[in-house]
Amino acid sequence: MSEYLPPLEKLIEQFRKLPGVGRKSAVRMAFSVLDLSDEAAENFSSAITDAKKQIRHCEICHNLSVDEVCPICADDTRDHTLICVVEDAKAILAFEKVRGFRGVYHVLGGVISPINGITPDKLAIADLIKRVRDGVKEVIIATNPTVEGETTATYISSLLKNTGVTVSRLAYGIPVGGDIEYADEVTLNRAIEGRRAF
Amino acid sequence: MSEYLPPLEKLIEQFRKLPGVGRKSAVRMAFSVLDLSDEAAENFSSAITDAKKQIRHCEICHNLSVDEVCPICADDTRDHTLICVVEDAKAILAFEKVRGFRGVYHVLGGVISPINGITPDKLAIADLIKRVRDGVKEVIIATNPTVEGETTATYISSLLKNTGVTVSRLAYGIPVGGDIEYADEVTLNRAIEGRRAF
Repeated sequence: MSEYLPPLEKLIEQFRKLPGVGRKSAVRMAFSVLDLSDEAAENFSSAITDAKKQIRHCEICHNLSVDEVCPICADDTRDHTLICVVEDAKAILAFEKVRGFRGVYHVLGGVISPINGITPDKLAIADLIKRVRDGVKEVIIATNPTVEGETTATYISSLLKNTGVTVSRLAYGIPVGGDIEYADEVTLNRAIEGRRAF
Repeated sequence: MSEYLPPLEKLIEQFRKLPGVGRKSAVRMAFSVLDLSDEAAENFSSAITDAKKQIRHCEICHNLSVDEVCPICADDTRDHTLICVVEDAKAILAFEKVRGFRGVYHVLGGVISPINGITPDKLAIADLIKRVRDGVKEVIIATNPTVEGETTATYISSLLKNTGVTVSRLAYGIPVGGDIEYADEVTLNRAIEGRRAF
């Protein structure tokens, strides 16, 4: 494997750890780093450590944050009685882009997946239950529509059953602009189940 | 554009500069860095600066090297009267893998491309001419079969015309295992031109 100079080989290995990067791409990336100016390489290197050092998790919702509390949790104009539960911080960004949601979030940090060793105690579920007891009216569970996402949603909704809050789930169906002809069976089934009167 | 936290955005911008990495991939990569342990992030960061600091260019052939002179130039068992001229250090690795070549190399550091501001003086051509005067018998020009590669090959061979060394070019033709049916016209034409008697 070690066909390159050791420092280059080490850099290739680091790039390979990134999602979606195979050996060939990693080699191209490592060579491109060698072509950078000293200053640019230094900037790249410190961007990694800076991001890692400066970004932490919001103490309330576990969203990524530079401060102890993230800007969303610190925003008094938002509805703090409505919590949208998401798998990871990236999902928050998707919701924030559409601007249709004025509540707050709760990041689980993953989904229940015993096969990968992710049991409910590894996720921020206990924190969520604590938050819900503090005057929350509705919890929207917005985990992904995967087996694990569904399991997690069901688990959380069962925990919240007797707390008196409304628990909802995002609607499933044909994506806007999608073609019914090409929708998969499960999605189409969900779209029929979830049909609404005009 | 700045939808992410500033330190994260900076890291995304750094990943975007890598070859073949678009915005979405860069975002995924940056998030994956946040998921690394502190130690792993530190390792990644220092792999970049280490590679940049420790790897330099061989004083003789401009190949990548940790020492002043690369292992190939320092190897006395190789034929130093036969120089294979390549565009970049990656090409050397390709040649070394096949082990069919026992001469030495010369890395140009690119190809002549006036449109991109790469004139012959930006490449290691003067160094090559100096080396050739020092008892070299043959120069194989192994630039890529592109317009720029061809131009560079022609330019170098014209400079070496009166030095008495043999100047050759890699053979063009159908790749081994390739299908004539799918070969492009230019390649097929070159294969016919370069035909050899059995």
